[in-house]
Amino acid sequence: MASKFRLALIQLYVEKFRPNNLARASRLIAQAASNGAAVVVLPEFFTCWCDPKYFIENKEQLDGPTNRMLSQAARDNRVFLFGGTFPEAIPDSEMLYNTCQIFNPRGDLVGMFRKLHLFDVDLGPRMKITESEMMVPGKSLTVVDTGFCRTGFGVCVDLRYPELARLYAKRGVDLMTYMGGFSLTTGPHHLQVLQRARAIDNQIYVANVGPASNHDAPYVTYGHSAVADPWGRIIGETGSDEDIVYADIDLDLIADTRTRLPVDHMRRDDLFETRDLTEEQT
Amino acid sequence: MASKFRLALIQLYVEKFRPNNLARASRLIAQAASNGAAVVVLPEFFTCWCDPKYFIENKEQLDGPTNRMLSQAARDNRVFLFGGTFPEAIPDSEMLYNTCQIFNPRGDLVGMFRKLHLFDVDLGPRMKITESEMMVPGKSLTVVDTGFCRTGFGVCVDLRYPELARLYAKRGVDLMTYMGGFSLTTGPHHLQVLQRARAIDNQIYVANVGPASNHDAPYVTYGHSAVADPWGRIIGETGSDEDIVYADIDLDLIADTRTRLPVDHMRRDDLFETRDLTEEQT
Repeated sequence: MASKFRLALIQLYVEKFRPNNLARASRLIAQAASNGAAVVVLPEFFTCWCDPKYFIENKEQLDGPTNRMLSQAARDNRVFLFGGTFPEAIPDSEMLYNTCQIFNPRGDLVGMFRKLHLFDVDLGPRMKITESEMMVPGKSLTVVDTGFCRTGFGVCVDLRYPELARLYAKRGVDLMTYMGGFSLTTGPHHLQVLQRARAIDNQIYVANVGPASNHDAPYVTYGHSAVADPWGRIIGETGSDEDIVYADIDLDLIADTRTRLPVDHMRRDDLFETRDLTEEQT
Repeated sequence: MASKFRLALIQLYVEKFRPNNLARASRLIAQAASNGAAVVVLPEFFTCWCDPKYFIENKEQLDGPTNRMLSQAARDNRVFLFGGTFPEAIPDSEMLYNTCQIFNPRGDLVGMFRKLHLFDVDLGPRMKITESEMMVPGKSLTVVDTGFCRTGFGVCVDLRYPELARLYAKRGVDLMTYMGGFSLTTGPHHLQVLQRARAIDNQIYVANVGPASNHDAPYVTYGHSAVADPWGRIIGETGSDEDIVYADIDLDLIADTRTRLPVDHMRRDDLFETRDLTEEQT
């Protein structure tokens, strides 16, 4: 089994409405594939602006246009596609999920992840956000095995909880993929520090991909998509504009890092434990 | 109760043997106090070189010369003194603890912490270290309340475990104090990232204090003592040489940060839990 592959993060410039965003994402997926990417990742809320008004106008169910574009792009370009997130309509409800769909290179939907932690903050006059008024959080972790890489998923605020990364690491993931739209307030202080810490703590690869900064939007995202390796080094990154970040992943580095610095072996399992309550619910 | 105080981290240049180190530490504690510090912290293994040969020659029990110097320095300078660590001899054993003693401004020993995670690594030809061959790990967390600041303790590798910081946060600490001697191999990549992440995750102050780099020693420490605030900003730091890092702590910033960004409130306690197994043992 291949232990090396190229990962591409598409830091999409997101416009108000879905059609242009789907078209541009489709083009950039093809571009990433033509540059050798085997796995392509889109950011959080890539189908419309991150704002209640635009969520309502652009929400769709799981079998909608976003699903069709992603499935076709995965198939046409023969890539694994971690398809960002979109506002998922819930039948007979005004509420939404923040949902990621994952496709294999045949275009089959092989996994789905719904954001677990909702963003209820008061970060200033234009940054009071209460996602829980309009969104329903997910209830479970999602691990997808591509055959060459075991991947766990999180969205935005999910990055703030080391417990979540730890649960995924216990499930054997090689790569955590966080699709995030950190703000200009928190991004510069928190995003890359937390990304690198999750990589160092668990000795895995950690990707974070957000939309490009769009200063016309009501909520301006920070961008700065990046990939950290198991030693916590940033091996691919970008700034605030639309861009594709490429990273050559070498999964052998995980075992090598763990042999040299056996964090898991040294851990005092007799003193503390991160309990996975999701498992007990099933 | 005062919500502001000055913290001083003494990044001591450590020599082979105890007497010079105690004398220099004592002088620097007085200097820190004269500059307004209410809490003074010494680094890991400040009484001798970090090496089996020097541990054997400098080990002592809890009522030894290190204890006496620290108690007197705390009393003379009227400071809370988080007294770094020393190789604590275990009666009728060749083994050691890596032990921190904590004194109040009257010179009373008010707490003790023994390093929980031992460093067993293979980081290269001169960096194969197996602490478990000569050390016994501690079994419990230590929280000390100064009356104006609730503090938790960790030593070196303990910083690598977010679970530990989380357990301390659940016990209500305002400040985590890590006394660490990170190496030149891991320090540049991991030390400040992990320190800042523990601060951001738990929205508390996090101090890390290590010995100055001594290139004559068998194990060369990285230095770079620093203080991170609850937003993850570094508010005091130094390089590799002997120095005192000062930081003005404002505990109101903890509540303020948590109000703006309620990480604890948003956490999905229904999905995961960090269990404190130490409590259940008592």
